Amino acid sequence: MRDLAGHPELCAINTATLGFTAPIGEVIEAVARHGFGGIALWRREVEGQDVKRIALLIRDAKLKVTGYCRSTFIPAATVKEFRASIEDNKRAIADASVLGAENFVMVVGGLAPGSKDLAAARRQVAEATAELVVHGREHGVKIALEPLHPVYAADRSCLSTIDEALDLCDRLAPASEKMLGVCLDVYHIWWDPALERAIDRAKGRILGFHVCDWLLETKDVLNDRGMMGDGVIDIRAIRAMVEKARYRGLVEVEIFSAANWWRRPIEETLKVCKERLGTVC
Amino acid sequence: MRDLAGHPELCAINTATLGFTAPIGEVIEAVARHGFGGIALWRREVEGQDVKRIALLIRDAKLKVTGYCRSTFIPAATVKEFRASIEDNKRAIADASVLGAENFVMVVGGLAPGSKDLAAARRQVAEATAELVVHGREHGVKIALEPLHPVYAADRSCLSTIDEALDLCDRLAPASEKMLGVCLDVYHIWWDPALERAIDRAKGRILGFHVCDWLLETKDVLNDRGMMGDGVIDIRAIRAMVEKARYRGLVEVEIFSAANWWRRPIEETLKVCKERLGTVC
Repeated sequence: MRDLAGHPELCAINTATLGFTAPIGEVIEAVARHGFGGIALWRREVEGQDVKRIALLIRDAKLKVTGYCRSTFIPAATVKEFRASIEDNKRAIADASVLGAENFVMVVGGLAPGSKDLAAARRQVAEATAELVVHGREHGVKIALEPLHPVYAADRSCLSTIDEALDLCDRLAPASEKMLGVCLDVYHIWWDPALERAIDRAKGRILGFHVCDWLLETKDVLNDRGMMGDGVIDIRAIRAMVEKARYRGLVEVEIFSAANWWRRPIEETLKVCKERLGTVC
Repeated sequence: MRDLAGHPELCAINTATLGFTAPIGEVIEAVARHGFGGIALWRREVEGQDVKRIALLIRDAKLKVTGYCRSTFIPAATVKEFRASIEDNKRAIADASVLGAENFVMVVGGLAPGSKDLAAARRQVAEATAELVVHGREHGVKIALEPLHPVYAADRSCLSTIDEALDLCDRLAPASEKMLGVCLDVYHIWWDPALERAIDRAKGRILGFHVCDWLLETKDVLNDRGMMGDGVIDIRAIRAMVEKARYRGLVEVEIFSAANWWRRPIEETLKVCKERLGTVC
């Protein structure tokens, strides 16, 4: 297993960790200055901006772009809305290409509005993903399906397990092509009784690996995620499984923490991330 | 599939639904008067009371006792605490026997205090369950393992999926004996991509079936559960799977709702439960 201590260049910062408070140029500079090897961006920071200029800033800072977050939710109540979501995602994939992002991260969405039919939502996701993989191939952008914790099945992701994501990958694109895979976030997968087997099955399909922590007394499952080491996830054990499954990409920190880390200066958050990556990840 | 409309005798009320506000005698009388066929009790209503008297009240009201809730959490930091939890559960199983409860419901507990080792927690659960099944057999009380939603993996249940519970059942007691099985609650299982297959696998092992609903905008995953029909779970579809797997026991309503249903008069809650059981379950 790679040693992350003193090696921030093996790690990346997802800008969501910094709460979207500082301008993107400042964030890029700070992430690079702290020695991280990569950055993951969000569409809210990019869309409506000069995308090429942002791409240049990142290139000049010598940062990789690990991921571009995230897909517009897929399941829709009407064909028109379903198509609109796909087109929206295609535009985002084109931006991901301009940014030089390794992956377009898909958070697929939960139930369609007004629906109780999870199976139908999952069929829409499969159909849309099939189309977006083609688009990704054309733009040289990999599609990374991110299974989300089952607590989000209703409103954010009907894709809840690694196995479900891999089933979809196997149906839609050969593993050898490396254009469709999964993004694994410890927050979403740590509880899975089939974790070790599922990660092993993901060999050759792991496009991204995210770390944060599950706080024992979580106040909000969306925006109260913990800094690595402050919660109950055995992050190092999961990283060992992921590296055993031949993942060699950057270890990306993504922490949604409205009441804590987002309120701190980004310098402090980056410093603590670097330290914790070396000690508990 | 059984028709529940006009058949409250096929249904049971878990007293947690009524918020533990009224005295147990009053609750038993009201549940029986509304025509329900059964009731599930909690240890907080029973321990330290005259258990035989409560059992008599229930018998006189002609109610079945579907379940006795719930086990003391198993995973412990020390052998002494582990043993204490098992002994505590044994006493509760003895009370379940006096009450004539069909099942002792096991909510197994999450990580041991201070631990990040889910696998160790699961091993402790397996070891304790093996011992409690023996005790249940002696007292004529079935042990119903209730897998809880993965959102509780840290603090309430390291047993998160139906498959995991069934694996444990298969290891510890033959299905034919019908002393160890699972209690399925739609709130905990609805998200599972393997749901239909897992419920089919549970044939002969389903000892209890709970209904409530997952509110789209859940404010608290513990105590903001919804009345059937107010959320996004396709309850009828899940009941169809459960009955296809030959479950013929009562359909039990269990709703933890601190800010809503627990604040209403129990007469109103019982009336709405009866109505919704007939229309959306």
